[in-house]
Amino acid sequence: MAAIDSDYNEDEYIRTERSTPTRYPSRATYDRAAVHAVIDEALVCHVGFIRDGAPVVLPTVHARNGETLYIHGSSGSRFALLDGEPVGVTITLIDGLVFARSWLHHSAPFRSVVIHGTARVVRSDEEKLAAMAALIDHVAEGRSKDTRPATRKELAKTAIVAIELTEVSLKARGSHIGEEPEDLELPHWAGFIPLTLTAGAPVPDEALAEGIRMPDYLVGYSRGGIQA
Amino acid sequence: MAAIDSDYNEDEYIRTERSTPTRYPSRATYDRAAVHAVIDEALVCHVGFIRDGAPVVLPTVHARNGETLYIHGSSGSRFALLDGEPVGVTITLIDGLVFARSWLHHSAPFRSVVIHGTARVVRSDEEKLAAMAALIDHVAEGRSKDTRPATRKELAKTAIVAIELTEVSLKARGSHIGEEPEDLELPHWAGFIPLTLTAGAPVPDEALAEGIRMPDYLVGYSRGGIQA
Repeated sequence: MAAIDSDYNEDEYIRTERSTPTRYPSRATYDRAAVHAVIDEALVCHVGFIRDGAPVVLPTVHARNGETLYIHGSSGSRFALLDGEPVGVTITLIDGLVFARSWLHHSAPFRSVVIHGTARVVRSDEEKLAAMAALIDHVAEGRSKDTRPATRKELAKTAIVAIELTEVSLKARGSHIGEEPEDLELPHWAGFIPLTLTAGAPVPDEALAEGIRMPDYLVGYSRGGIQA
Repeated sequence: MAAIDSDYNEDEYIRTERSTPTRYPSRATYDRAAVHAVIDEALVCHVGFIRDGAPVVLPTVHARNGETLYIHGSSGSRFALLDGEPVGVTITLIDGLVFARSWLHHSAPFRSVVIHGTARVVRSDEEKLAAMAALIDHVAEGRSKDTRPATRKELAKTAIVAIELTEVSLKARGSHIGEEPEDLELPHWAGFIPLTLTAGAPVPDEALAEGIRMPDYLVGYSRGGIQA
């Protein structure tokens, strides 16, 4: 992992050859706060690893604690066997669709964090419990304190993998419409349709005891998202 | 790729050891129609490949033509160099969130297609054009006929990678709430919050010529999704 930028500062991740996008490198940023915002908004990540010489990509939930990313599996899952292995974790948010007058300029505005790192299977019960709480609170802030924590037995059934955030980049495309100047007069509609992950009406558990209201932190549930 | 199921039929993908989930194999299906539905609904896929011994996962748009998956890149992208290499492509839809009374039973209902295959960089202009049309129509059915096709020069700038759908599985979890019986009396809210990708108000291009209306196939844009 050789750094290739000369103007690195501590607010940014180290920039390496593989963390530099081949296409549109100007759309990439290494700013920690911008990367954190995408990681914290997204509900799911895609974890890549190698098995028998072939890449495998699996989705899971994640949470961030400072500069550590935690991903969730079970002790019987493939994640539990990743200790010490190289992994690639990618987190993508699609913010909408750009419809251009030509095929080529159709696009999907997005924000995508690409992480290169080494998996560390968390062994200590203390770190595992903290990671599990972070995973729950990543979904809904405050939820971990409003539910029953994992028992020792449940803890043993859970695998948590930690990846240190060191070699990380964020690539983003906005909602602008690229177009060849000569196409502007074509008789085709062009524009941007924003897309957001939207919560529908909650469905309370049928077995819910009487008098238990939905907590404030779940009312009007939303994952953020950018404005068009 | 050795098949391990004895009751294979042509409506299903071949089942292999690596296409069988380690956890909850009962949640997996190899049914072609069910797999196609998830691929066709999702806007984005995550492509895993190996570089310098490490896994890399990148997002891109995709489309399906029969049993071929096409993914989009540019001729300068890493995808253009994948010819003949093993790839893993995963497509995930998150359908909501399950809030249980205990940490362990929190979950995210999902549908996820995991594809193992070999990348083939498409060389023929004819197949490339057909794949580009499929990519556009994947986003909005009918759009490719209502926009300017790629020129020869634009075609040369585009990389299309094909992956044959042979070793493919779908894993899905519904919106039920798992819970330990002894936890049912705990004073915590439990339930399901459905999540769907929802279109906001379209933003027409400022340069749009007068009198050009949004086409019917874009009005009320939606990606489907399951019902709670």
